[in-house]
Amino acid sequence: MKLRNPPVNSLSLELLTELVIGLEKLENDKTFRGVILTSDRPGVFSAGLDLTEMCGRNPAHYAEYWKAVQELWLRLYPSSLVLVAAINGASPAGGCLMSLTCDYRVLADNPKYVIGLNETLLGIVAPFWFRDSLVNTIGHRASERALQLGLLFSPAEALQVGMVDKVVPEDQVQSTALSVMSRWMAIPDHARQLTKIMMRKATVDHMIKQREADLQNFVNFISRDSIQKSLQVYLEKLKQKKG
Amino acid sequence: MKLRNPPVNSLSLELLTELVIGLEKLENDKTFRGVILTSDRPGVFSAGLDLTEMCGRNPAHYAEYWKAVQELWLRLYPSSLVLVAAINGASPAGGCLMSLTCDYRVLADNPKYVIGLNETLLGIVAPFWFRDSLVNTIGHRASERALQLGLLFSPAEALQVGMVDKVVPEDQVQSTALSVMSRWMAIPDHARQLTKIMMRKATVDHMIKQREADLQNFVNFISRDSIQKSLQVYLEKLKQKKG
Amino acid sequence: MKLRNPPVNSLSLELLTELVIGLEKLENDKTFRGVILTSDRPGVFSAGLDLTEMCGRNPAHYAEYWKAVQELWLRLYPSSLVLVAAINGASPAGGCLMSLTCDYRVLADNPKYVIGLNETLLGIVAPFWFRDSLVNTIGHRASERALQLGLLFSPAEALQVGMVDKVVPEDQVQSTALSVMSRWMAIPDHARQLTKIMMRKATVDHMIKQREADLQNFVNFISRDSIQKSLQVYLEKLKQKKG
Repeated sequence: MKLRNPPVNSLSLELLTELVIGLEKLENDKTFRGVILTSDRPGVFSAGLDLTEMCGRNPAHYAEYWKAVQELWLRLYPSSLVLVAAINGASPAGGCLMSLTCDYRVLADNPKYVIGLNETLLGIVAPFWFRDSLVNTIGHRASERALQLGLLFSPAEALQVGMVDKVVPEDQVQSTALSVMSRWMAIPDHARQLTKIMMRKATVDHMIKQREADLQNFVNFISRDSIQKSLQVYLEKLKQKKG
Repeated sequence: MKLRNPPVNSLSLELLTELVIGLEKLENDKTFRGVILTSDRPGVFSAGLDLTEMCGRNPAHYAEYWKAVQELWLRLYPSSLVLVAAINGASPAGGCLMSLTCDYRVLADNPKYVIGLNETLLGIVAPFWFRDSLVNTIGHRASERALQLGLLFSPAEALQVGMVDKVVPEDQVQSTALSVMSRWMAIPDHARQLTKIMMRKATVDHMIKQREADLQNFVNFISRDSIQKSLQVYLEKLKQKKG
Repeated sequence: MKLRNPPVNSLSLELLTELVIGLEKLENDKTFRGVILTSDRPGVFSAGLDLTEMCGRNPAHYAEYWKAVQELWLRLYPSSLVLVAAINGASPAGGCLMSLTCDYRVLADNPKYVIGLNETLLGIVAPFWFRDSLVNTIGHRASERALQLGLLFSPAEALQVGMVDKVVPEDQVQSTALSVMSRWMAIPDHARQLTKIMMRKATVDHMIKQREADLQNFVNFISRDSIQKSLQVYLEKLKQKKG
């Protein structure tokens, strides 16, 4: 599955919807047992959530957008498919979150390909299910530090902290992901799926229980003048960088 | 305490019952403060649960057997004794579980002495209290990967992931276990026991609460035709290997 | 903030009260955003709880003292301030606990500057919120071992197990703490504070819920003849050491 939304694979409402529908189809098609998540455009895996969907719109739009983000996570995290992330570019925020839902993460060894949940740098807060995905991967202490500081890890740091499972030269990301996939495919599917659910069910159940509250919380938070302002400042900076 | 059930120290119903009774006696005898768990037959610590008890029998037998497995864990995991595992052989599945209940694990440095919860390789699923014992030892992420892939770790890998605490040359396993034991014995017993219970109580309480459901779940799962079939195939392979 | 209670910065009732009041003031003064916790007397960060407050007094005094210990933790652990520990001396028991509540720990590289929750060595048990602070920092398995054995880690060991974040030469502890502080100060305050609370709220809520029971538990435990006796023996030893 190749992420494609030029220029930086932002998770626009449209892309999110496509991803959710695509994943649903693959889950229901018994001929598919695994998916490699990668980017169509080496250099950026995904820039994460699309700030233009979260800035200068109305609350109804924010709600619709956030529901789609929740849906994607709920589709990915407990997926019965084997998910391997072939991370061939930078992977901040939502891009990192997608990686964290996978069963295995391969990252290209390029110092520009940073990965992390950097929400605080934008003045916003990663929701609790981003936190849970991270804590389940790198533990409580490393998460506390990474989330507060909005750390973006280099490949070497990401490997050391456990944010990714393997770092390989850039031209070997896809082949490594494929060989990882065949390793996971060798396990009896039913036993592997039940085991995966056993590991992730509590986290998913907690999210589902808090889903509505999380939605309200997001809409209220993002609608605040102060947050809108800091997002606008951030977007302006991004534009100037490109200009 | 030396495990002895030739040829591979499978945890037969008989051995389980003996272990539980033996441990109960030691717990109640105030002259005993610690136990070193090891194998009478270097080469195999324990091959784990006895597949012949789980294959081709009736549901009542499966229930009786599973109760005995639960009993052993409930006796070992919150034991007031200091438990040190002197792992002098391969230690898959139930053998690994017994090690995980100990306070300290010493493994002989022999590449054949692998250790891990490899249930998925047999098409079955480690129950939640196997998972909890593992997560408490090596953390969530490493457990997720190890349990899904049914990983059997070499001594070097086991040390690195935290599955064991020390790897020593084969002829030093017993002496190392003894010196570890005397280190733990130096701590005031009452304070140490209360501290151990504080660390393990939540896990034990959760298991006790789910005990009946877990029993039903096991009997239903293991009675399925598909599971019986895959166990038979596995047993056939084992026989041919030996033959 | 410099700890000062000669000779070893024991957390006397007086010092605890001062610390709580001081922290409350800083929290409410919007011109303060962070605090570096260090010792006025290099060599001892803090010897921890004051045994003379817990030995040979009446239950009412034990209750008053324990309430103050609880207050300090409840003030430190969820603090909206950035807390950096500049650990310039030994840091057993309560001294270690204070460090664990911080956002970042810098330890001077001196083999005498050990750190850990060594309660079992005194025949007592670290309460559950000490345990939670430790588990959140170094994980379940390392905590289980450290708490049962009452381990005091050397700087190198403390770094390896994750008990501290950085070990630096003794004369660089303060400057390192300052540069760490400015790194944390660079993060938008509001987002950082919400993120910190998100990480620590469950632990704090659990403690508040169990606060009364924990108080009763402490007073009962410490009032026991056997515990009083072992504390007296320990205090005698300390006096002889000095003498």
